[in-house]
Amino acid sequence: MSLDFTQWSCPLPLRDYPNIVVGHGGGGKLTTELIQHLFAPAFDDPALHQRGDAAVLPLDGARLAISTDSFVVRPLFFPGGSIGELAVNGTINDLAMMGAQPRYLTAGFIVEEGLPLAQLGVIVERMAAAARAAGVRIVAGDTKVVDKGHGDGVFINTTGIGVIPDGVSIGPDRARPGDGVLINGSIGDHGMAIMSVREGLQFETTIASDTAPLHGLVAAMLEAAPGAVHVLRDPTRGGLAAALNEIAVASRVGIQIDERALPVSADVQAACELLGIDPIYVANEGKLVAFVAQEAVETVLACMRAHPLGRGAAVIGRVVEQPAGLVTARTAIGGARVIPMPLGEQLPRIC
Amino acid sequence: MSLDFTQWSCPLPLRDYPNIVVGHGGGGKLTTELIQHLFAPAFDDPALHQRGDAAVLPLDGARLAISTDSFVVRPLFFPGGSIGELAVNGTINDLAMMGAQPRYLTAGFIVEEGLPLAQLGVIVERMAAAARAAGVRIVAGDTKVVDKGHGDGVFINTTGIGVIPDGVSIGPDRARPGDGVLINGSIGDHGMAIMSVREGLQFETTIASDTAPLHGLVAAMLEAAPGAVHVLRDPTRGGLAAALNEIAVASRVGIQIDERALPVSADVQAACELLGIDPIYVANEGKLVAFVAQEAVETVLACMRAHPLGRGAAVIGRVVEQPAGLVTARTAIGGARVIPMPLGEQLPRIC
Repeated sequence: MSLDFTQWSCPLPLRDYPNIVVGHGGGGKLTTELIQHLFAPAFDDPALHQRGDAAVLPLDGARLAISTDSFVVRPLFFPGGSIGELAVNGTINDLAMMGAQPRYLTAGFIVEEGLPLAQLGVIVERMAAAARAAGVRIVAGDTKVVDKGHGDGVFINTTGIGVIPDGVSIGPDRARPGDGVLINGSIGDHGMAIMSVREGLQFETTIASDTAPLHGLVAAMLEAAPGAVHVLRDPTRGGLAAALNEIAVASRVGIQIDERALPVSADVQAACELLGIDPIYVANEGKLVAFVAQEAVETVLACMRAHPLGRGAAVIGRVVEQPAGLVTARTAIGGARVIPMPLGEQLPRIC
Repeated sequence: MSLDFTQWSCPLPLRDYPNIVVGHGGGGKLTTELIQHLFAPAFDDPALHQRGDAAVLPLDGARLAISTDSFVVRPLFFPGGSIGELAVNGTINDLAMMGAQPRYLTAGFIVEEGLPLAQLGVIVERMAAAARAAGVRIVAGDTKVVDKGHGDGVFINTTGIGVIPDGVSIGPDRARPGDGVLINGSIGDHGMAIMSVREGLQFETTIASDTAPLHGLVAAMLEAAPGAVHVLRDPTRGGLAAALNEIAVASRVGIQIDERALPVSADVQAACELLGIDPIYVANEGKLVAFVAQEAVETVLACMRAHPLGRGAAVIGRVVEQPAGLVTARTAIGGARVIPMPLGEQLPRIC
């Protein structure tokens, strides 16, 4: 069947890339362009324009949070976890970033012919264990098999449905000048754990992924300071830099980060220096940034530090009025630099 | 990192296949074994044991239907549609088969590096058009890119959320002896449309996919005869044969089909004969089988024939007590034969 694709008028600025490149999936500028110029105009739904980690939708009086995520991480198993834990925790976290309590997950598997059943079995058991640990039900599934050479072991899509409690109102556009910027622990662990097992890039130390479900921590924070948490985001693809840039743009504010305040483990720091990578661009799978009203910063920080997933919590910056849409960092030697949105992902297929 | 998968004890009868084979995704016996012995024991959720096309779950007083499906059809474009229409209509239909009115869809894209943006653009536009035509909102999305040679153009996962109206109770275990078995039109069109464009298998005539959203037809049927529709199922992978076998097992009844009553277009019949394929095993994407209380069969049939998607509706068989779990067919020459569950899929990757 012949189809004439020349009739399709490519929306600028995508025309620079007539074909999909790896960076389109990296969570950076290219991903944003694809969403803004290709997906959003076609689907044109107000829920997509919210630009939250999950869509917020009414259903018979309740407010649902709905989020979908496909996981294509390579390798399938890595220190600290596997694609199974990521697929469960990643979608739980997207719901949690809207303040929702996750209820139901679906799981769609695209398996490559030849995958050992034992590997699939272990991945599925790990997903089940992660869901049980998080108190979330996996309620529907689907399996497709693609012929050898047209997949890569297994890809997993999870879609999550949660309920947002009354009175909770969190979104990427709610950061206000004066807000404190908090993080629940060290950055870069997940991305560097993946890197450490990629072919030819073994390090001496074992850096483990930080994959974890964050909805319990979020519930504690919201309870500690009702109404004070304005924005939550989990800095996955594109790292903390991409998350902060998205919030700066959505909220039309400036964000000032103090580089010396960024928690980075010695191992991750060493690995990043070796590879010439800035940990602020490296993916996390068990971290959140929270934008908190100034007067509640100490309360929320104490609450985070009292939680098992927030022991390393720190205040890393604050929101300012100008320059709106920009993230800047005070460097370790006292200078200032702009932290730009990454173009693509430095480490492809980390989730 | 070394992982010891020999510790994983493979549940029988899967041990016959130590690695995933294409048939595991075919919707037949191998898929059933994978679900029953690998997925269901691990996830162990009552919703998964319902074995419906969608899970039925409570949420703040409402009854949600939730379904997920990944689409890996090859080629991406074919007569009558594309992966885009399939991804929208397929998930809508899974919700409709539980009597639900679909509300929200999510869309997860796994794109292979190198896919022309124009192809992705057209697919996305077709998804959007299909969703608009069906009155369903696409509310959340995700895009991942895999490196060239580790995907196949684009795979799309859609997950759907619908609401089941009060009083509606449909499930694969509700067929009762005496029920009439109805179908809304000709079988085998989708699978043979795909086959017709697969490399080296061009036919003279153009067979078009029957992809269509069935929730409108279902709503009309439920309104025409409240309480009389016991089972609905869309015969996709594995065709009508797989759908009927699943229902016979779930409802513990026998199903007798009259082969002469099965609607098959002349083109599909000819193509099937040429290839030695039985149309009862060929996938459909715009068809449903309905199990209807005997006294309401004529009412529901008339209602279906009055609907644009049911003009070719026919009564194709009936439910009997014995032999429970078996599907039998009266053949065109008056004999009887068992219609077994297919092992895998005769035509891989048709959806």
